[in-house]
Amino acid sequence: MEKPHRHVVRVRYADTDAMGVAYNAAYLIWFEVGRTEWLRARGLPYREVEERGVALPVTEATLRFRTGARYDDQIEIETELAEVQSRRVVFTYRLLRGDRCIAEGSTIHFPVEIATGKAVRMPPWLLERLA
Amino acid sequence: MEKPHRHVVRVRYADTDAMGVAYNAAYLIWFEVGRTEWLRARGLPYREVEERGVALPVTEATLRFRTGARYDDQIEIETELAEVQSRRVVFTYRLLRGDRCIAEGSTIHFPVEIATGKAVRMPPWLLERLA
Amino acid sequence: MEKPHRHVVRVRYADTDAMGVAYNAAYLIWFEVGRTEWLRARGLPYREVEERGVALPVTEATLRFRTGARYDDQIEIETELAEVQSRRVVFTYRLLRGDRCIAEGSTIHFPVEIATGKAVRMPPWLLERLA
Amino acid sequence: MEKPHRHVVRVRYADTDAMGVAYNAAYLIWFEVGRTEWLRARGLPYREVEERGVALPVTEATLRFRTGARYDDQIEIETELAEVQSRRVVFTYRLLRGDRCIAEGSTIHFPVEIATGKAVRMPPWLLERLA
Repeated sequence: MEKPHRHVVRVRYADTDAMGVAYNAAYLIWFEVGRTEWLRARGLPYREVEERGVALPVTEATLRFRTGARYDDQIEIETELAEVQSRRVVFTYRLLRGDRCIAEGSTIHFPVEIATGKAVRMPPWLLERLA
Repeated sequence: MEKPHRHVVRVRYADTDAMGVAYNAAYLIWFEVGRTEWLRARGLPYREVEERGVALPVTEATLRFRTGARYDDQIEIETELAEVQSRRVVFTYRLLRGDRCIAEGSTIHFPVEIATGKAVRMPPWLLERLA
Repeated sequence: MEKPHRHVVRVRYADTDAMGVAYNAAYLIWFEVGRTEWLRARGLPYREVEERGVALPVTEATLRFRTGARYDDQIEIETELAEVQSRRVVFTYRLLRGDRCIAEGSTIHFPVEIATGKAVRMPPWLLERLA
Repeated sequence: MEKPHRHVVRVRYADTDAMGVAYNAAYLIWFEVGRTEWLRARGLPYREVEERGVALPVTEATLRFRTGARYDDQIEIETELAEVQSRRVVFTYRLLRGDRCIAEGSTIHFPVEIATGKAVRMPPWLLERLA
């Protein structure tokens, strides 16, 4: 079993809301950052995926919030590839502050041919890199 | 069965991303707008809920994306109260462009006493208004 | 002298930060909303401007903050066209809560041909509508 | 003359808009990141400034955009303290992609006592650290 990929972000003032903690939508952005860095660590920056004509839009997302992230907290994003099939990839995420899991979630993506906007099967070069 | 509450938002340029459609996190913000207007229509603006000492933070959220929302699209947010209990409220959302459902999702909230930051039972004045 | 165009937005929880007021970047988004509605009122939705092949990116922006906008405040955006030339358009904005000006600012835009990405002179159909 | 402080951010998909480049409001957030890291490098994290009872809200901001920042670009934020007085601090920013300046701007801040919300003179511990 591969270890999850880890990447650290800081909570920005822009991420916080009047409750004094990060607004819920900020977590979806951190999931994006985790996934981006997971792909880069695999040698396949998402920018290159798109340059090769394929996008991986989000079709489903789930989030579970355990405790608030405060301004300037360092949040470690643990990203794992949970599943990959010809028409679907699932990533899971855990956000940690120190040892404590503050939130977790998942995103499901499907491959789209950018030129036509149509859903397609995962091309071999992408499937090999993900699997 | 109560009809869902409807509120229209426009997709702003700020909501879009380089794919030419609304970025996934924008949908969580539209869920917030839908929920806010649902509460206002019930005669209980969320600002008043907080002024009375209670917050309703999001503990879980799910999103399912069906098709992209484009710049300047008018999106109708249908919000429904799906469940209310002493320690939990569930809202569900459907986003429509014309007749077409472009996304749907849900958020689960729990009552917190703002002064202490502790989870509490829903106070009667809030429970009555929601139920 | 033409009256400024007025459009109302509500401060969303997503717009606020841990200071309890709207985060500074939210104001640039409200300027976008004001400008968009100004153009629509002129019979020229910005989506149509782009469909005709021209974009009007921001090249400069200024913001002056007088007092904070709080969650759920209704903010009236007053937008005015301050200047239009063949290669430049200037909009000015005043944000009001009731009678009180809470912020003001400006944005400068220049016409770009979308197909080539090059700065161009304002096409006559656009200049006529703006002036 | 002190060298400007440098900090690198990546353009996230969330930062981009339908023009394929970073949306204008993202730059204000990067200014925040630059300022935050400038303060941290001075041994005075902004979180500590607030914990000592003082906030430094933005009262004015200017932005000049030279060329677009694209998804996944590495942007170097150069932050400098341009001026500090008893009631005002000015930061200036230059955003670089490689050797090229893609945007620049400034923010003006004034000290506020958090407990009362009133503008105050810069306390000595803060003035010393800034100057």
